[in-house]
Amino acid sequence: MKLTADARGVFPIAPTPFFDDGAVDHASIDRMMDFYHGCGSTGLTVLGQLGEAPKLDFNESLEIASQVIGKSAGIPIVVGVSAPGFASMRSLTRAVMDRGAAGVMIAPPNTLRTDDQIVNYYHQAVEAIGDDVPFVLQDYPLTFSVQMAPGVIKRIVDDLASCVMLKHEDWPGLEKISTLRRYEAEGAMRHISILCGNNGLFLDYEMNRGADGANTGYCFPDMLCDFVRMIGEGQKEEAHDLFDAHLPLLRYEQQPGVGLAVRKYVMMRRGILSSAAQRRPGGALTPAARSEVDHLLTRLARHDPRAGKLVA
Amino acid sequence: MKLTADARGVFPIAPTPFFDDGAVDHASIDRMMDFYHGCGSTGLTVLGQLGEAPKLDFNESLEIASQVIGKSAGIPIVVGVSAPGFASMRSLTRAVMDRGAAGVMIAPPNTLRTDDQIVNYYHQAVEAIGDDVPFVLQDYPLTFSVQMAPGVIKRIVDDLASCVMLKHEDWPGLEKISTLRRYEAEGAMRHISILCGNNGLFLDYEMNRGADGANTGYCFPDMLCDFVRMIGEGQKEEAHDLFDAHLPLLRYEQQPGVGLAVRKYVMMRRGILSSAAQRRPGGALTPAARSEVDHLLTRLARHDPRAGKLVA
Amino acid sequence: MKLTADARGVFPIAPTPFFDDGAVDHASIDRMMDFYHGCGSTGLTVLGQLGEAPKLDFNESLEIASQVIGKSAGIPIVVGVSAPGFASMRSLTRAVMDRGAAGVMIAPPNTLRTDDQIVNYYHQAVEAIGDDVPFVLQDYPLTFSVQMAPGVIKRIVDDLASCVMLKHEDWPGLEKISTLRRYEAEGAMRHISILCGNNGLFLDYEMNRGADGANTGYCFPDMLCDFVRMIGEGQKEEAHDLFDAHLPLLRYEQQPGVGLAVRKYVMMRRGILSSAAQRRPGGALTPAARSEVDHLLTRLARHDPRAGKLVA
Amino acid sequence: MKLTADARGVFPIAPTPFFDDGAVDHASIDRMMDFYHGCGSTGLTVLGQLGEAPKLDFNESLEIASQVIGKSAGIPIVVGVSAPGFASMRSLTRAVMDRGAAGVMIAPPNTLRTDDQIVNYYHQAVEAIGDDVPFVLQDYPLTFSVQMAPGVIKRIVDDLASCVMLKHEDWPGLEKISTLRRYEAEGAMRHISILCGNNGLFLDYEMNRGADGANTGYCFPDMLCDFVRMIGEGQKEEAHDLFDAHLPLLRYEQQPGVGLAVRKYVMMRRGILSSAAQRRPGGALTPAARSEVDHLLTRLARHDPRAGKLVA
Repeated sequence: MKLTADARGVFPIAPTPFFDDGAVDHASIDRMMDFYHGCGSTGLTVLGQLGEAPKLDFNESLEIASQVIGKSAGIPIVVGVSAPGFASMRSLTRAVMDRGAAGVMIAPPNTLRTDDQIVNYYHQAVEAIGDDVPFVLQDYPLTFSVQMAPGVIKRIVDDLASCVMLKHEDWPGLEKISTLRRYEAEGAMRHISILCGNNGLFLDYEMNRGADGANTGYCFPDMLCDFVRMIGEGQKEEAHDLFDAHLPLLRYEQQPGVGLAVRKYVMMRRGILSSAAQRRPGGALTPAARSEVDHLLTRLARHDPRAGKLVA
Repeated sequence: MKLTADARGVFPIAPTPFFDDGAVDHASIDRMMDFYHGCGSTGLTVLGQLGEAPKLDFNESLEIASQVIGKSAGIPIVVGVSAPGFASMRSLTRAVMDRGAAGVMIAPPNTLRTDDQIVNYYHQAVEAIGDDVPFVLQDYPLTFSVQMAPGVIKRIVDDLASCVMLKHEDWPGLEKISTLRRYEAEGAMRHISILCGNNGLFLDYEMNRGADGANTGYCFPDMLCDFVRMIGEGQKEEAHDLFDAHLPLLRYEQQPGVGLAVRKYVMMRRGILSSAAQRRPGGALTPAARSEVDHLLTRLARHDPRAGKLVA
Repeated sequence: MKLTADARGVFPIAPTPFFDDGAVDHASIDRMMDFYHGCGSTGLTVLGQLGEAPKLDFNESLEIASQVIGKSAGIPIVVGVSAPGFASMRSLTRAVMDRGAAGVMIAPPNTLRTDDQIVNYYHQAVEAIGDDVPFVLQDYPLTFSVQMAPGVIKRIVDDLASCVMLKHEDWPGLEKISTLRRYEAEGAMRHISILCGNNGLFLDYEMNRGADGANTGYCFPDMLCDFVRMIGEGQKEEAHDLFDAHLPLLRYEQQPGVGLAVRKYVMMRRGILSSAAQRRPGGALTPAARSEVDHLLTRLARHDPRAGKLVA
Repeated sequence: MKLTADARGVFPIAPTPFFDDGAVDHASIDRMMDFYHGCGSTGLTVLGQLGEAPKLDFNESLEIASQVIGKSAGIPIVVGVSAPGFASMRSLTRAVMDRGAAGVMIAPPNTLRTDDQIVNYYHQAVEAIGDDVPFVLQDYPLTFSVQMAPGVIKRIVDDLASCVMLKHEDWPGLEKISTLRRYEAEGAMRHISILCGNNGLFLDYEMNRGADGANTGYCFPDMLCDFVRMIGEGQKEEAHDLFDAHLPLLRYEQQPGVGLAVRKYVMMRRGILSSAAQRRPGGALTPAARSEVDHLLTRLARHDPRAGKLVA
């Protein structure tokens, strides 16, 4: 099964679980996959920006991707293959596609500036990985320093049939979704799936602008799944109530650098990961930050019983 | 009265009111000043990053600063004097100090990279404006692309006695406050005032890390004043409840580019500004964005009667 | 007389002469103008990037531009009006055009990234200064961090009739000249003047690619004038011989930061400026650098008698 | 044999030879090694910035490094191991050191800004590769956007005993060499080897500032070897004459992007490489550029018989 432009719902971005000594924690991967399935995830992305991919060597990356694919239970698995060189990108892509991945995600190198440079880069990437591999275009200027105007995304979609999804995490980004959907409505661009990242910070309004769901790693992916479902069922204000209850913690987790430590800590508290450790070099919560996260969970517990279980 | 390192509370960042034709709206400035005084503001900053200062010529800048100073009612007025050249910075500084400003705010030019370059720049700025003028160090890497390690701030504070306040808007920034306050506790750095910007996005925990208050322009500065007061009075959870109720809107306004349009729109809705116009070239809310802000206000009205008045 | 797209030859970029105490040295401006006329300059640019413009206040800028215009002797004077805000840009533009400037030069702010952002900026600039003012588009990515693809320059030329000249200083930049001239040859873009900057580092081949001359501040502008003239007269190898003799010094002066100190030092040695001083904050040659420049002049003296006079 | 702080002379940066179809050309590697030995190279660096390393997969990289090490004939071979993640950096380092490399070269990722971030990165890199592996610190802000103040280099040298060489390619960079050598003279920093890159553009004066030689890939490495030797023998003006004769071509090759195509073309013309091809995606000389290089070679032939052989 390959990824298509009809993808919808929530594709969590999976962290890579490690033991405290830095070894990959495969049991936690299994547990995490069960958890994501239980949430109602419609797909999954591994080895993304917050998956600590650069700290993994090729064999580890392949092993993790393979384990996740093996536990996919029929939902599409997308693998992050961003790399400084096309040789590595191609090797990892071919290997994971052979093992059953549904597609790959490609972020732009942070040296790209002009529209032509960006479009050209994706042409080269497709030449490297093969035009039979569906890919997700990651648009995350805050982290990658690459700014893609809507017209650039349109050019990539027009030129490259294997581009089937946008991982939308521009900021501000609401108007960009509206612009892309207007292109589609006017018949100027074919339809692609738009799933939103950036920890979900604007998911509450992104859905209304035409996004198809979320593709991010917030430590309560079950909330993201609920939110998308409730919006789909027309329970708008209830969906916003749930979202707003999570926003203080979600915003805290969205901080660059600190965010992954928060995510792993909460996922450990929730019993999904056995350890909050990051492989070296990595961050960790200071005692002050940890007490802030605990405070946020306590306050969230008043609104969401899933947090309540953690603070009883 | 000059700005000192003991400054506390909330110094709102005032927008510059314009009529739809781009002329400065002086009546709105008076009304805005009355409003800020009514909120309990302990100081005020004009001609900051979101004050559209680069669109004002020298005489307009001076006129606006003078009007604000004339309505200061005893609270310190800080004037943003960031400029690409020291000649302009000096001219504006001397002129506003002559008219009664309490100090100036200086942001770093976005070409600075190394620690030495940053420290050296502030030495040159103080040489230009005079070491008798108290200044606020603006630390806002997201907008200015200049990253100041805590040790760099310490060097500036150590070297330059006229640095009395940090406008803290690094992101993530909580640990930076803790580090600076630890320097002080260890006797390694003299005390400075730390007021937080970044639209208040982390004010709920910044206070606990040792910040003295806020220095930002959120469209409900009265909430910021309430929050800081309640924290001071020990009403911690009630303060968080108020903050969290505002967070969905506050986060929406914190978006770069879009934010000023949101701020001016809400301040117009609140009767403070006569127009939400920005001087050209400027942004405006799309109909979709405007309806999202209205939705956020409606939801906020359930918790804060100040929003309730807008959606009756 | 207004600047047109037919401009050719050499427009030196004039430095701003200061006395050691930082005061503007008006006598040196007069002497410098006589020198430039004696060289065969076909135009002149003041208040450019290396004219220390940000250290001048508005009145000083206007006074210097007026003096230069007063000594123009019929050649077009272009004034750099780049500014962080359109209010300042407009004020200076209107003032210098009223006094007889032939046009203005506008560099992009270093925050621009996408093609649309760049094109949009020049639309806004023309709206600010008026579409009756001929302007020079400065394309200098090394200093301004803004990368303009040839297609972006074409869009600006297509959209804005008052864009009559490109100050070309992209690096590498030879193919860009060829591309722009090909657009013209194919009838896809109207003709503009292309004068080359970047201290002339590639002028030897830029002429052959279709450039109309130079627009830069090398301390031997007479060499630049000779080179352009000799190429025009078909003395190709002799022109290259002259250029190559100057290349070691020219390359040394092209160093960012250090370059202006070299330029002013040599122009002082040549009797054009009374002092090599830069207004504070500015650079100065270290003793080691000064001895390297002296060594370069001594070696140049073997090939060019104009250097010989300095080392007798 | 391991790389030490006493390294001197010329360590050419070897390109990676490819056939037109993108396959690695091992015969050209052997020929290139013979050529470098014939020039008088005192060391060699492979898989550097212009060695197209990101286009090689792990096994290719290892194979090339092994072949070069096998042909080292007793001179130290340095291998570029810069990578986005420490896992890859470690794997390649351990593999090449096992095969007899003398040390590795590490460039900073282009996201580093503050002094502490840079120093911290090299601590982490040494932790990853092991403190028994001598490493070369690459300081190339033009390409990597990382600015290292002299004090930062000093901190790295102070903290990390395995840092034995600086590949100096800051620009401007002459004063940096003087500052580092002054640190040494004052006993404030231990001695390290400083070899200069940046295509040798300032090698003529870098030697006088205290550099130990060159570490760059100019297409006439024999000229670089001659120059360093002549300076060592006190033939200063003759050395400058040789350097200046090459400067027009050297400057042309130093252009970013275009440079590698020039280098490979000339090395093919010289009979060292069988093809000028770069692996895809790569650049190639346009006909205009090729004719400019031919012109530069023709003019160089008047001064250097090694060029003369190419234009007979």
